[in-house]
Amino acid sequence: MHATSSLCAEVVAAIRGVVGNDKQQLHEPRFQGNETRYLQECIASTFVSSVGPFVNRIEDELCAFTGARHAVAVVNGTAALHIALLLAGVRPGDEVLVPALTFVATANAVTYCQAVPHFVDSEESTLGIDPIALRKYLSASTVIKDKVCFNRATGRAIRVLLPMHSFGHPADMDALLAVASDFHLIVVEDAAESLGSFIGKRHTGTFGLLGTLSFNGNKTITTGGGGAILTDDTNLAAKAKHLTTTGKLAHRWEYTHDSVAYNYRMPNLNAALGVAQLEQLPGFLSQKRALFNAYSSAFASVQGVRLVREPRFCTSNYWLQTLLLDRPDTAVRDALLEATNAAGLMTRPAWTLMHHLPMFRDMPCAPLPVAESLALRLINIPSSAGLVEASA
Amino acid sequence: MHATSSLCAEVVAAIRGVVGNDKQQLHEPRFQGNETRYLQECIASTFVSSVGPFVNRIEDELCAFTGARHAVAVVNGTAALHIALLLAGVRPGDEVLVPALTFVATANAVTYCQAVPHFVDSEESTLGIDPIALRKYLSASTVIKDKVCFNRATGRAIRVLLPMHSFGHPADMDALLAVASDFHLIVVEDAAESLGSFIGKRHTGTFGLLGTLSFNGNKTITTGGGGAILTDDTNLAAKAKHLTTTGKLAHRWEYTHDSVAYNYRMPNLNAALGVAQLEQLPGFLSQKRALFNAYSSAFASVQGVRLVREPRFCTSNYWLQTLLLDRPDTAVRDALLEATNAAGLMTRPAWTLMHHLPMFRDMPCAPLPVAESLALRLINIPSSAGLVEASA
Repeated sequence: MHATSSLCAEVVAAIRGVVGNDKQQLHEPRFQGNETRYLQECIASTFVSSVGPFVNRIEDELCAFTGARHAVAVVNGTAALHIALLLAGVRPGDEVLVPALTFVATANAVTYCQAVPHFVDSEESTLGIDPIALRKYLSASTVIKDKVCFNRATGRAIRVLLPMHSFGHPADMDALLAVASDFHLIVVEDAAESLGSFIGKRHTGTFGLLGTLSFNGNKTITTGGGGAILTDDTNLAAKAKHLTTTGKLAHRWEYTHDSVAYNYRMPNLNAALGVAQLEQLPGFLSQKRALFNAYSSAFASVQGVRLVREPRFCTSNYWLQTLLLDRPDTAVRDALLEATNAAGLMTRPAWTLMHHLPMFRDMPCAPLPVAESLALRLINIPSSAGLVEASA
Repeated sequence: MHATSSLCAEVVAAIRGVVGNDKQQLHEPRFQGNETRYLQECIASTFVSSVGPFVNRIEDELCAFTGARHAVAVVNGTAALHIALLLAGVRPGDEVLVPALTFVATANAVTYCQAVPHFVDSEESTLGIDPIALRKYLSASTVIKDKVCFNRATGRAIRVLLPMHSFGHPADMDALLAVASDFHLIVVEDAAESLGSFIGKRHTGTFGLLGTLSFNGNKTITTGGGGAILTDDTNLAAKAKHLTTTGKLAHRWEYTHDSVAYNYRMPNLNAALGVAQLEQLPGFLSQKRALFNAYSSAFASVQGVRLVREPRFCTSNYWLQTLLLDRPDTAVRDALLEATNAAGLMTRPAWTLMHHLPMFRDMPCAPLPVAESLALRLINIPSSAGLVEASA
């Protein structure tokens, strides 16, 4: 008990030493560029809805930044995932491999396709899906027939592997792509949290057949609500635009549609905000890296916790700074959450693991020892860009 | 042939007589109020995403304007319909009665619930579902068991009646509510097009258990993309908020969710635009009525077409002005569309009827003589607010 309260005091002091004594949110957006100018331009043009020059610009600029051949701007990251999964061929009754350690949207999007999320374990070094554990698990529990991977226990086809880059740290995509290839799985990447994160020189979200981004208010850049689908496949990009614009067929005046589709395009108004935010992304990334370095020094001497560092050969956007307790201990974790939040420093544990949520309790599940451990040890701490200035 | 080209010339002249010689879109938004001021305030507050004061304000002001007890602002009208249908109890395999004459979102939203749209006929006086034809059809084709209406042909439960207020003209809700009551159907109203339309003193969208609005770029007011769910039921309103915010449970720091849910809340940025637009709604409505009056005079002497007038005892928002040919004749209709669009006056026929779309071709269907006739006779003409000024 004494050790715990002393740890709490040390953690509060370490965070305050970096961010100062003000109240801090977990992640606040920063608007210091052309935001209001572009919003005014957007209003003056009268194009505020799903067609407009800022939608084209954000798509072009996302391609330039990520290296994806195509980007399709949509209403949020959840919608991006839904469409990416449909385009990857997920059909009702299929299974999709999803990390248990993720935000609920990853699993929800699978259910929107009337498919079944199948939860797999993460590794501590990346906080993403563990490729070694995954290979072992699939070898034991699946069978390949006609180049389709079937879950032996449920008899259902496992169609897609859906890695997520937790808090911006890249999962081990090279190894995951190798597993996917061996088990005939299509890869869709949930890069909602990892805009600005690279593996080597390659941007997260561009390794799979399709990848998805989010520009929600708590993300590295924001469009209010928004997201994007990334792909190098021209045909899939065209289909993504079609499926997100109600499946309407082009015609001078007729209103006709060829498939059940969605109202998922990003409005030009939100894209205007996003273009202004994208211009500032390099600066945000420097500031977030500087914050990591400052926290890193501050926590170097704190025993019992460590700050999560980007995986080897990767550049993380450091979206959310993350502390890991050395040992899983709910009492210590909750004491830290209580102490930091009471001190006006917003902190948060990992998401409740997907297989513990009532609606996903009966879904298929690999052994999850690492995810279970991480969920009890992980705490996100204040992470806004600009909490410390980037060094020159 | 001579008669057709003469009619085309008369229609072009009648429209130009009202709107002048400039090119005209079908419906353009108008931003002459506090739009940029509120957007600036929104940016300055840093609250641009799904929580913020403008979201609360637009909800409060929608309640004040429509008389609904609760309004829940969402990402668009399609999302509003999806959630309203779920909350009305639509379950996989149910049927929902939908007009064949509607925008595709009405039927798409039914399929998002894994339910089946069942198309019914419209009446010429309102362009909405015909209550007399509906009663006759349901009497012949359904059976009631334990207060549930079953389609005799398919064996499926028909759960919901979903009227839509076409182009802003109110459907005959009193008669439709009576049919719904007799056949144990819950009523959800698609009021996407009818913000500002009343039956007597009561606003459309407040007659059913739930109603939905749209603020897409082409609507009477716009939020870029946006919509709302209206209901007097406090419990359903709370559920609507919960289901549209990923089903997250309130907690100081925990991230846990109790159901498969959606990322459907309206961002504060879009709500800021909407609040400014709502302030101008009374003016827009006066301008749209003035436009109707001007068109009405201009078309009084044109033989072969008539301008659609608001139904008796109703106040229409006159969202889209509508011409009806006296007789169904595709050649004449298409000649008129060609002539007006070639003259820079954007016009449009009715939506392709739902049962003619490939994905809905095999859905259950009532006889649709009126919808089929209307679809061949109906042309929307330029309808933006401000094309003519409202009289004092």
